Amino acid sequence: MNENLDMEMQFESLRQLLHADRINEFRETFLEWHLYEQGQFYFSLDQSERLRLYTYLSPKETADMFDVIEEDHEDMKDYLTEMAPRYVADMLSEMYADNAADILHQLDKEDALKYLSLMPSEHVNRIKVLLGYEDKTAGAIMTTEYISIVANQTIRSALTLLRKKASEAEVIYYVYVVDKDNHLAGVLSLRELIINDDDTLISDMMEERVISVDVTEDQEDVAKTIRDYDFLAIPVVNSRKELLGIITVDDIIDVIDDEATSDYSGLAGVDVEATAETPLKASIKRLPWLITLLFLGMSTATLISHYELLINEASILAVFISLITGTAGNAGTQSLAVAVRKLAISDDKDNNFFKLVINEVLTGLITGLVTGVVIFVVVGFWKHNFVLGFVIGIAMLCAITVANLAGSFIPILMEKIGFDPAVASGPFITTLSDLTSVLIYFNIARLFMGFLIEM
Amino acid sequence: MNENLDMEMQFESLRQLLHADRINEFRETFLEWHLYEQGQFYFSLDQSERLRLYTYLSPKETADMFDVIEEDHEDMKDYLTEMAPRYVADMLSEMYADNAADILHQLDKEDALKYLSLMPSEHVNRIKVLLGYEDKTAGAIMTTEYISIVANQTIRSALTLLRKKASEAEVIYYVYVVDKDNHLAGVLSLRELIINDDDTLISDMMEERVISVDVTEDQEDVAKTIRDYDFLAIPVVNSRKELLGIITVDDIIDVIDDEATSDYSGLAGVDVEATAETPLKASIKRLPWLITLLFLGMSTATLISHYELLINEASILAVFISLITGTAGNAGTQSLAVAVRKLAISDDKDNNFFKLVINEVLTGLITGLVTGVVIFVVVGFWKHNFVLGFVIGIAMLCAITVANLAGSFIPILMEKIGFDPAVASGPFITTLSDLTSVLIYFNIARLFMGFLIEM
Repeated sequence: MNENLDMEMQFESLRQLLHADRINEFRETFLEWHLYEQGQFYFSLDQSERLRLYTYLSPKETADMFDVIEEDHEDMKDYLTEMAPRYVADMLSEMYADNAADILHQLDKEDALKYLSLMPSEHVNRIKVLLGYEDKTAGAIMTTEYISIVANQTIRSALTLLRKKASEAEVIYYVYVVDKDNHLAGVLSLRELIINDDDTLISDMMEERVISVDVTEDQEDVAKTIRDYDFLAIPVVNSRKELLGIITVDDIIDVIDDEATSDYSGLAGVDVEATAETPLKASIKRLPWLITLLFLGMSTATLISHYELLINEASILAVFISLITGTAGNAGTQSLAVAVRKLAISDDKDNNFFKLVINEVLTGLITGLVTGVVIFVVVGFWKHNFVLGFVIGIAMLCAITVANLAGSFIPILMEKIGFDPAVASGPFITTLSDLTSVLIYFNIARLFMGFLIEM
Repeated sequence: MNENLDMEMQFESLRQLLHADRINEFRETFLEWHLYEQGQFYFSLDQSERLRLYTYLSPKETADMFDVIEEDHEDMKDYLTEMAPRYVADMLSEMYADNAADILHQLDKEDALKYLSLMPSEHVNRIKVLLGYEDKTAGAIMTTEYISIVANQTIRSALTLLRKKASEAEVIYYVYVVDKDNHLAGVLSLRELIINDDDTLISDMMEERVISVDVTEDQEDVAKTIRDYDFLAIPVVNSRKELLGIITVDDIIDVIDDEATSDYSGLAGVDVEATAETPLKASIKRLPWLITLLFLGMSTATLISHYELLINEASILAVFISLITGTAGNAGTQSLAVAVRKLAISDDKDNNFFKLVINEVLTGLITGLVTGVVIFVVVGFWKHNFVLGFVIGIAMLCAITVANLAGSFIPILMEKIGFDPAVASGPFITTLSDLTSVLIYFNIARLFMGFLIEM
């Protein structure tokens, strides 16, 4: 709390320097800050203040700041538009290629080409390669600023190279060893470079079992590998094992965050984001899903209306509709969450498909049996009607089992036909299971109708 | 897929070396593997194979492997029990203090004390300090193996120190500068040590604006800071700003993963974990929640049964119960997810409480209005009954608004009274909103009963 307040006061006094045109004092304070803090200050400015800021900072200084702030910030496009095109081009050239590509990716093709045309060709080529990879693959999130070396050199020459390249490489904690055709042959950590004797040959001490990822690999799988191995960066290769780039742990943290948010959003049936939204914007985002589910819910209503005669004869049946649909929906949501998570984590997906569904159905039978017995006893005593209790108990058992089947099978089906299993959201499963639960409930009730009315 | 197969074949041939007692060949292959792969091989062994493995590996070698595999593996306790106590003590002494503390944390107090009594006192003290911090705080996840130095030295001496300590420190990419009382005064990255001249004084080039976290800070906040600043490690201090330890990015990735899983589990009302479970075990975990919700659902049923006379008069009312409860539940789940996420991300929580609820209620009014109009039209034409359509539309509007209120207010309330807001799960909100929706629906229906029966 105090720190936030403190930071805000610092922001305020810096803003005053900006307004007072005290450029030297401003630069002295601003450039001492962490890049993330510079970014937060930048986000707090209005347009006229930002325009002034661009005249205070070199493209390189703005680039450093932009390297750390989130590249997919919603206003990024506006920020670039308000800068001079030349300034944008210089800034993008100074950024790490992966971050520059991320920014260009969000622009209209026309704007992107305009900036690229103003940039030195070496940067353009590097960025264009990155822009060519499919979204959410290793290629799309890798950077090409890494340090590589050939094997027949000593640690001394590796350290000299490292000193020279340290300022431009994104990560200096690994040095990658390649052969003359740029095939990845080994890796050395800076730790090893430092503790070993300077005259040691690189080939004698490099790690030859290099873990790498393919350039087409899904970013989620890359994240898994980095997390499992506790790496700070991982090399990216093509099918011929040529070194193309590296992926750093800070980008992987963003991937893990994004994937978690997207799984979470899927389960809730709403796009959950950090950005503040007006109620109107939020409504526009949520309504398509709500209306879709409303129409799915209409089928349930239509189904119930087929059983109106039954309800007319025994209105007590209506009392338990929401209990059965609700409980089955809860059970189905549990199955869904377990299935989506298992699909996300498991490595060899095919083997587990069948087992996962079977397990969920068995779990449904057990939980359904327990829940069914409980409701049988409760309703039996409450309404003094054990036939009704029996009907509801059996319906509960069947509805829960079917909900678990749907909750586990549907995400697997999604994955099989190439969708993200997380889009099979909780609300979808509950609304779907409403339909099956009602069908089960009234058909079981009809079987026992004779007994039910008698009472 | 191929890589997995390949790895399995390597596992198999290594297992054969183990069975054939070819210890030298085994060690040669095994120790060349990455620690993570060693761990995967270890997990694939049965008990008799593991017992043999312990005789092949030194406690230090087993410790290195245990440093990388997940410390909270469910079988960890069994693994330690099958080792000789002396071997366990030696292994724990060789592990990084934070990982050793994590393992000891899972044992019975008796066992933990037994191992600690066998360990050298310097390690014991270090671990005991870590064990003293509350779970899920910076103190609990930090390690004490960092590199610190005083300011009035040259880079040359810093590099010498670093070379000496590199083998035992968990992270060598930052050197922390402290005064004689161990107060944190600055930080230097290894990158800067390498690119600057060896005779530069540390005090001249260290970063004095050190971002640190307090030892009592929540691990989620630490994760946020590391993610925002793109750090590889962050220093941990006490209230007197004395340096106590560091938290490394690999541990932060685990924190982010765990928190995401727990948020996700909360939303689904089930503990989602990677480990394989039998249907029986899964049922035992899920049933308490299902049964609790069942009884909450019973209140809804009780409420509906109060309106049985109404249903008797107009059984058409029963047809739309599940549509209204379902849609309101879906809307409430969306609000809940947005609120939980906002609470997790926002820094200054107090200010936003009120605004968040207001926003959700306004969003509820808008989505409710649109949904209500849609259902009014659909039901009006479908049942040729616009009064019924009006009743259902108005009920929908009210039920959605109340569901959004509950969905945003309840997690905030949870947070206020000191619970994790994520425990206010989706199923809880939907079941609760069933209750309020039914109440709203039948009361509105009663108001219009005269018109409804007439038709």
